[in-house]
Amino acid sequence: MKFGGTSVADLERIRRVGRLVAAEVASGRQVAVVVSAMAGKTNELVAWTDGAGAAAQGIPASDDEYDMVVASGEQVTAGLLAMTLRNMGLRAKSWLGWQIPIITDDAHGRARIDEVPPEKLAAAMDAGEIAVIAGFQGVTRDGRIATLGRGGSDTSAVAIAAALDAACDIYTDVDGVYTTDPRIESKARKLARISYEEMLEMASLGAKVLQTRSVELAMSQHVPLRVLSSFVEPGEAPGQGTIVCDEEEIVEKRIVSGVAYSRDEAKISLFGLPDTPGVSSKIFGRLADANVNVDMIVQSHARSEGAANMEFTVGKRDAGRTIEILRAAQAEIGFEDAQLNEDVAKVSVIGVGMRSHAGVAKTMFTALAEKGVNIQVISTSEIKISVLIDAAYTELAVRALHAAYGLDQL
Amino acid sequence: MKFGGTSVADLERIRRVGRLVAAEVASGRQVAVVVSAMAGKTNELVAWTDGAGAAAQGIPASDDEYDMVVASGEQVTAGLLAMTLRNMGLRAKSWLGWQIPIITDDAHGRARIDEVPPEKLAAAMDAGEIAVIAGFQGVTRDGRIATLGRGGSDTSAVAIAAALDAACDIYTDVDGVYTTDPRIESKARKLARISYEEMLEMASLGAKVLQTRSVELAMSQHVPLRVLSSFVEPGEAPGQGTIVCDEEEIVEKRIVSGVAYSRDEAKISLFGLPDTPGVSSKIFGRLADANVNVDMIVQSHARSEGAANMEFTVGKRDAGRTIEILRAAQAEIGFEDAQLNEDVAKVSVIGVGMRSHAGVAKTMFTALAEKGVNIQVISTSEIKISVLIDAAYTELAVRALHAAYGLDQL
Repeated sequence: MKFGGTSVADLERIRRVGRLVAAEVASGRQVAVVVSAMAGKTNELVAWTDGAGAAAQGIPASDDEYDMVVASGEQVTAGLLAMTLRNMGLRAKSWLGWQIPIITDDAHGRARIDEVPPEKLAAAMDAGEIAVIAGFQGVTRDGRIATLGRGGSDTSAVAIAAALDAACDIYTDVDGVYTTDPRIESKARKLARISYEEMLEMASLGAKVLQTRSVELAMSQHVPLRVLSSFVEPGEAPGQGTIVCDEEEIVEKRIVSGVAYSRDEAKISLFGLPDTPGVSSKIFGRLADANVNVDMIVQSHARSEGAANMEFTVGKRDAGRTIEILRAAQAEIGFEDAQLNEDVAKVSVIGVGMRSHAGVAKTMFTALAEKGVNIQVISTSEIKISVLIDAAYTELAVRALHAAYGLDQL
Repeated sequence: MKFGGTSVADLERIRRVGRLVAAEVASGRQVAVVVSAMAGKTNELVAWTDGAGAAAQGIPASDDEYDMVVASGEQVTAGLLAMTLRNMGLRAKSWLGWQIPIITDDAHGRARIDEVPPEKLAAAMDAGEIAVIAGFQGVTRDGRIATLGRGGSDTSAVAIAAALDAACDIYTDVDGVYTTDPRIESKARKLARISYEEMLEMASLGAKVLQTRSVELAMSQHVPLRVLSSFVEPGEAPGQGTIVCDEEEIVEKRIVSGVAYSRDEAKISLFGLPDTPGVSSKIFGRLADANVNVDMIVQSHARSEGAANMEFTVGKRDAGRTIEILRAAQAEIGFEDAQLNEDVAKVSVIGVGMRSHAGVAKTMFTALAEKGVNIQVISTSEIKISVLIDAAYTELAVRALHAAYGLDQL
């Protein structure tokens, strides 16, 4: 069972989590619980590290000290939940990353889990103890605290489940995975099941219910995953939520399972590029060197002879840096002008059924055209189609696509 | 170097601490820094554990989980200070109790340090690294976090200094140990030196500059101790502070070194006790069983034949419980009436010179009588005399005694 920051935001919610854990134990299961920091606490800690590192120019990286500070948030919640469970008459003990241990590489601030030896945890659980585990953190082989990056508690939970050969229930502030964001489309329906691959696309395309890495890990380790709500009243059951599983376990496959959107991207346009081989590798080589992730890319030919234009998207927080890098290399790359547009949104339709169905893209383009939504860039994979549009049209586009694929009649 | 909660209360103060550490390093010394939690943070964490344990009646003790929660405060400060030092171009690394390790017994919440193997710390410091250590915490032999009790960071600092065969500078919000509380007597003088024994009495009698246990440890381990201020401006030196040392190192011994006071005690009066052997052991046996510490005791004979009265003091927070315990045993003990008076203060004069000087008590009683201060209970040791008085006279008594022993002319 994994509980995120809003589910453990205060003592009353921690007691609610305690009741959910108690019900699970009462049903005869052994339980390990992974918790995030209380909502807002990680932000407070990160702000302090920003302040302490504010003068950081060409000085030794303090990423291990960043981890030392921010990992304390989950430690607090783990202790409080273990106390709460004991006060309910249950046997429980808290565990930090180094105590299990959850062994990570030393990429502080965004560490990857190398190994979770299950022996100590399993022994405690076999002895009848609920294991309450601080999420988001591990320990490097030389004994330093390492954190897994934002949302890393989901990844902690899946890794623990994999190590214990267990299923993983992710409790959050929604009661499952929806066909789209219910705040935008009130007709959004909860999905009973979704495949790992679809969930992966949903997560990376903007649906924030699960962290992408945790879904990847669940898929590769075959961990049965479920998303359900922690916001239930005493005595109330949390419902069935949404099961994330292998495609084969989904009997009736839909062509499109969901519509996702993201406003976290920015569009860069380069005009008047020389229409010669190697120009793309110059542009994207430089950006890769600077660790800028490029997403959608489209190249077009300008009217003038021998010139091309290039448009692509990067994460919004990388946008300013991207423009600087490109302008610094303007002479070498040879473009005439570079423009940045942050008023864009990426809207995507996702579904494993696309593999065997034609006409999915046509439905999308028709539905958007009917609403007067102009498509700026398109990108596709086997199971999704994404379009970049003017951000102002986001909600309109999401609703139009949701209806066009019949998702409101699920 | 040890810095308390007010010295690291925010990022600006942590930077000031960074400058003090940098100056110490620049003077050619190897430095280990012990830090407390940012002021107020421990209280916040303790309040949460109170909330989580609020229903705690006859349930398994959660003291290890209390430690898990509250130890996080010092972890945050250690990380932030290490970051700050790196940003100043220095080499630094934070250490938690389990990383050094600081091995404690398993009396969670008030653990005692068993052992501090110095090898890892010393190796890092020999390699040129400043060790930034989270105070207040250690780790039990079975790998659980343990805290040392309130003010435990002083004890951490002295234990680390002892392990490293180093001197220990305690930086605080005052610039040394004073002849009395300067907030009460503006003529209070800073002492250049004070003996461990005097400091121990000062600390246990109410002067809050150092934690009693840390002074005991420094005395038994012969750790040179110094108290000085962290509140200095950039470029300013912290001054000489007060050195706490062996009595032999103090050339000119004063008869009285300081006047301390405490309002943390309450007086219990039992009237009409049978004047028979064994009655004291009945009373104080019961209180010892209930872990109530009794301080000053005076027994007197009542006018009526064969009856006695008994007065003694306990900590204010134990007062209600003490009265309950006594009333429950009233028939067995055989007293007629029990009264509680919380409006009392203990005022003490402390000095190693008392050992070889007569007339110290007389000076005290005369000075108080001249101001019309009535003495309720008296207790003495080799190097201190304490009197219990009406709390309203506290400041008057402190000033009168400060003058009577010539402390304002030091």
